Amino acid sequence: MKVAILTGGGDCPGLNAVIRAVVRRGEQHGLEFTGVRDGWKGLLDDDTFRITRQNTSGILQLGGTIIGTSRTNPFKRPDGPKMVMDTVLRHNIGAVVAIGGEDTLGVASRFHEELGMKVVGVPKTIDNDLSGTDYTFGFDTAVTIATEAIDRLHSTAEAHSRVMVCEVMGRHAGHIALHSGIAGGADVILVPERPIDLGDVVRHIRARQRRGRRFSIVVVAEGAKMARSKEATVSDSLDDFGHVRLGGIGAYLAKEIERETGFEARVTVLGHVQRGGTPTARDRVLATRYGVFACDLVKEGRWGMMAALHGDEVVAVPLVEATRELHLIDPKLFEIAEVFFG
Amino acid sequence: MKVAILTGGGDCPGLNAVIRAVVRRGEQHGLEFTGVRDGWKGLLDDDTFRITRQNTSGILQLGGTIIGTSRTNPFKRPDGPKMVMDTVLRHNIGAVVAIGGEDTLGVASRFHEELGMKVVGVPKTIDNDLSGTDYTFGFDTAVTIATEAIDRLHSTAEAHSRVMVCEVMGRHAGHIALHSGIAGGADVILVPERPIDLGDVVRHIRARQRRGRRFSIVVVAEGAKMARSKEATVSDSLDDFGHVRLGGIGAYLAKEIERETGFEARVTVLGHVQRGGTPTARDRVLATRYGVFACDLVKEGRWGMMAALHGDEVVAVPLVEATRELHLIDPKLFEIAEVFFG
Amino acid sequence: MKVAILTGGGDCPGLNAVIRAVVRRGEQHGLEFTGVRDGWKGLLDDDTFRITRQNTSGILQLGGTIIGTSRTNPFKRPDGPKMVMDTVLRHNIGAVVAIGGEDTLGVASRFHEELGMKVVGVPKTIDNDLSGTDYTFGFDTAVTIATEAIDRLHSTAEAHSRVMVCEVMGRHAGHIALHSGIAGGADVILVPERPIDLGDVVRHIRARQRRGRRFSIVVVAEGAKMARSKEATVSDSLDDFGHVRLGGIGAYLAKEIERETGFEARVTVLGHVQRGGTPTARDRVLATRYGVFACDLVKEGRWGMMAALHGDEVVAVPLVEATRELHLIDPKLFEIAEVFFG
Amino acid sequence: MKVAILTGGGDCPGLNAVIRAVVRRGEQHGLEFTGVRDGWKGLLDDDTFRITRQNTSGILQLGGTIIGTSRTNPFKRPDGPKMVMDTVLRHNIGAVVAIGGEDTLGVASRFHEELGMKVVGVPKTIDNDLSGTDYTFGFDTAVTIATEAIDRLHSTAEAHSRVMVCEVMGRHAGHIALHSGIAGGADVILVPERPIDLGDVVRHIRARQRRGRRFSIVVVAEGAKMARSKEATVSDSLDDFGHVRLGGIGAYLAKEIERETGFEARVTVLGHVQRGGTPTARDRVLATRYGVFACDLVKEGRWGMMAALHGDEVVAVPLVEATRELHLIDPKLFEIAEVFFG
Repeated sequence: MKVAILTGGGDCPGLNAVIRAVVRRGEQHGLEFTGVRDGWKGLLDDDTFRITRQNTSGILQLGGTIIGTSRTNPFKRPDGPKMVMDTVLRHNIGAVVAIGGEDTLGVASRFHEELGMKVVGVPKTIDNDLSGTDYTFGFDTAVTIATEAIDRLHSTAEAHSRVMVCEVMGRHAGHIALHSGIAGGADVILVPERPIDLGDVVRHIRARQRRGRRFSIVVVAEGAKMARSKEATVSDSLDDFGHVRLGGIGAYLAKEIERETGFEARVTVLGHVQRGGTPTARDRVLATRYGVFACDLVKEGRWGMMAALHGDEVVAVPLVEATRELHLIDPKLFEIAEVFFG
Repeated sequence: MKVAILTGGGDCPGLNAVIRAVVRRGEQHGLEFTGVRDGWKGLLDDDTFRITRQNTSGILQLGGTIIGTSRTNPFKRPDGPKMVMDTVLRHNIGAVVAIGGEDTLGVASRFHEELGMKVVGVPKTIDNDLSGTDYTFGFDTAVTIATEAIDRLHSTAEAHSRVMVCEVMGRHAGHIALHSGIAGGADVILVPERPIDLGDVVRHIRARQRRGRRFSIVVVAEGAKMARSKEATVSDSLDDFGHVRLGGIGAYLAKEIERETGFEARVTVLGHVQRGGTPTARDRVLATRYGVFACDLVKEGRWGMMAALHGDEVVAVPLVEATRELHLIDPKLFEIAEVFFG
Repeated sequence: MKVAILTGGGDCPGLNAVIRAVVRRGEQHGLEFTGVRDGWKGLLDDDTFRITRQNTSGILQLGGTIIGTSRTNPFKRPDGPKMVMDTVLRHNIGAVVAIGGEDTLGVASRFHEELGMKVVGVPKTIDNDLSGTDYTFGFDTAVTIATEAIDRLHSTAEAHSRVMVCEVMGRHAGHIALHSGIAGGADVILVPERPIDLGDVVRHIRARQRRGRRFSIVVVAEGAKMARSKEATVSDSLDDFGHVRLGGIGAYLAKEIERETGFEARVTVLGHVQRGGTPTARDRVLATRYGVFACDLVKEGRWGMMAALHGDEVVAVPLVEATRELHLIDPKLFEIAEVFFG
Repeated sequence: MKVAILTGGGDCPGLNAVIRAVVRRGEQHGLEFTGVRDGWKGLLDDDTFRITRQNTSGILQLGGTIIGTSRTNPFKRPDGPKMVMDTVLRHNIGAVVAIGGEDTLGVASRFHEELGMKVVGVPKTIDNDLSGTDYTFGFDTAVTIATEAIDRLHSTAEAHSRVMVCEVMGRHAGHIALHSGIAGGADVILVPERPIDLGDVVRHIRARQRRGRRFSIVVVAEGAKMARSKEATVSDSLDDFGHVRLGGIGAYLAKEIERETGFEARVTVLGHVQRGGTPTARDRVLATRYGVFACDLVKEGRWGMMAALHGDEVVAVPLVEATRELHLIDPKLFEIAEVFFG
């Protein structure tokens, strides 16, 4: 049987480790593989190439994805789904392994349910906000990179007696901010799940000052928003949901903290470096486990399922599980972070 | 209440993170803290000092342990237990938080059961071989360091067309070898749980050679032993259990592989660097969770219990659980590693 | 003799290594040391404390500066110089070791020449733009951090077929951009010394595209400016010198490249992480050499001199040398970078 | 013109960066390139393959060498030189770029002088012991890896109140020990240039103990040897030159220190990890400069010359310069290290 592999959505450390693992396990199962260029786009455009043990050798530790990725959704154009199925037929593709996040797996799920595509999934999201699985690969790498940056910011904060605001990834959920904030010894951590009360932030910073700590580290998820004040309308800088209109929440916070406290504040926006480069050891192991498991799902014909981590076990869950709801931070972990606030 | 904290056994990245977390949580609970120098030895010798939020500030990311450690077991001398209890009384110590492995927690458990010491535990073992908990802090750091080393050895192996044998920690269980071997793309992984069949190792290396791969990476746990040959007595270099008498299993293997295959083989023994230095982000989070939880156990008077990780939850288990049996590698994970052998 | 040590200007990896080295060498010379808090500000405010071998132990590898830093210039207030000299007299300070950049050393030079202060200097600038010395500590660390970031951006650039613009430090000189660009394999490097010709940048990116390379990495120094077009006035976004008015050169370039080429472009601004955290091995060695040498200058009474690196030798040059002119990039090194453009 | 490239001797981070730079510069000069497999061996065995911009793309940051290396010396077999020259003629090779250390460049020099081969060289030695050049690529990477290891050993040493002996590379010269020892804050540094006086080592460790420092770090080059005692014959463990007969100088020292001081001592032998993996930013820049320069030497027909670093300039020196004498450590730098002993 010929199996197509595609990677969709934002890139993520560990994608290549999954691809390699699928191919190596597939060799044991007697499967052949086709790489689809740039996610679902490659099936739309009929852009595929053979992938083998040889051309996936040595990619375990590489960031990015050797088969490319895109955010193309074939269901967004009228003839898209048919074009994709035509490519599948033309190349005699017996199954598709789709590695991606909410969008990519959502498309996979629709192809499976509406057009009978034989598809299995591997969940991927650097933000770790997919439901159906406890952790996704790439997350540990992002947390590691963010923590190293926070470690570095500490020395500048201390040397200059500054408040350093570090904006990390996390559009809808604050997992990266929470984990890197705990690991980096943040004095305040701000996440999308909890609207920001500027007064609280200021209180923590002032409490430190009183104890002789002349600097503070604030870690904020890019998707965090300001709480809407009860007694007054929010600032013009914010939209109705409390999101900053221009320039990012980190820069906004630094400015507001400086205004409220009189302490010098600076912002660092980590951005794309959080999702690039070699995966951590843990992400390589997780990605490898997912890849082997996904290939077993193909072998067993368990279409419409994806690999997922429950506790320390890799298990099969329906594709629709991944996108059923947002996986938010654990309130108990946030309470642990709060022990160290201020 | 005054609470004593001690760290025993081999040092391990994350010990300071636990200490800091216990102290910070304790501040919320109104507790005071005494650091015990060098594990149980400090209670024997009455060598303690006050630890506070101030002198545990900034230690989250430091390797080692600011209160020192040793392998001293007070039960090994007749008057030991009494001397320890005297120190406890003299300083009006209301509870002891013992952070350590099999030995340290075993001693804690005996003090609790035999002499009524009010003790809670935090499990620590870089080898991850304690039962009662899925993971211990320090393990992820050790795996990370070993994986980075294996990454580096790859380029030398390939440039020189060599077999590189990398000996990692793991006296009784092969967790570090297994995880770093998967993460580092090892071609063979050898663990204490499975006696080594040299013929198998050679077969994998030769199979690679036939496919044009002129180098191989072998990861071996320090505690791995040779299988006893059926048809003949084992070599003089081995004891009755298959352990190498002199010089370590890595060096033995390199020599045997070179002899059997004719390929140049070299050994690297990672040693102490695996247990030193700053903990990974993941280990800092886990150590912090353990520390907060252990302090809560003190607050709640749950003596004889220790913090443990089950799946993604920190829970309480009896101290005796930690030392009940050896936590060996998961055979399913080893099967995943085997997909990539040869 | 009592010697005061101060660190001024932006923080820089290696400051603590210099302080430690001055103190350790000073112990051999029979000197005592006073740490001045927050640069020249500490001498204005009489904010000093004793530093010894004990409280500078273990700081070699720490980023930041344990004595704090600021940009305060005592010559900017009428009574400033007198207040500083009063503090010096009051505490019987026999010499001052000033560690800093253009501003800090400029102030040191004026105190020496105008008020007879016994001062020696250690040059510090992360941008490496001080004259009088080939290299300054902190520079290698900044280049290392920037290179690691560029490595990470490569995988994202490749996976998404994007142009990634990476903005690094370098207000007046492009050393960091040039070194990290060469080390990171940048396809275009833009520095303050050479006004940016957008057409050239676009040509390099298009040339890559024609050879099947679907991504490009552009490294730009924060101080780089656009060339002023001959035939037309520059865009409203730029001032008369070609500097971007709002939002930084990196963001401006990404937008312009996307507009001109149609390729997706993204910007990453590395910011403060480049100057924080543990120094590289090379910077620790250089900082240590500078510290020992500066202490020898004190011992020998060579006031008004500073440590400098010429080739591989640490030598003494007059303080005024450091600020005589800007140390710009070597055109021959830029030509080497150009070999790899496009 | 067709130019052959070969890499000989031990592998070294930066070899691939040199190869890439030669090829990219050569494209500008209109040259074509042939990769010789495994050093001089490939010219003996006629084992070569075309290398181009395409197959050297993306190798800048890779450790090892994509063309392989060996220690084969064609002059060691009677027909060797003729076989090599035949291969050169057969493939119409107009010039050879030899990248290697004492042996490889010595062979290159003989081929140039005795058989008229058109050869240019690039010096390579991780130990930095080649004369004719101030620094070689790979050295900074080795120092960086060794320093990271020493940083890690510090926490174990301190936690356990131990003496940690760290054995690093350096057979004939102590550059790596000296630089990593200074950078890592070693309490004693031992190099081949200065026979080891055990009494001195013990004195430094005891002096620390008296000042309350319960641990020490000893960094020793693998080629260091014991001083021969005047009043007595040296131990049976040593040969006539003071070299340890079995097991390495690190292990010997740890045992002797433990015996003399009663303090627990442990050894770590870093071994092959020092020469593998991705080069530091600095080594990538240096290797790139060497590669571009060597290609220019070819273009200009300056046969028998090699690239070298003098101060901060890359210059041409005769191949014979590289092997004229051993490049030993700078006594002035050792004196700086001694400031921190004990």
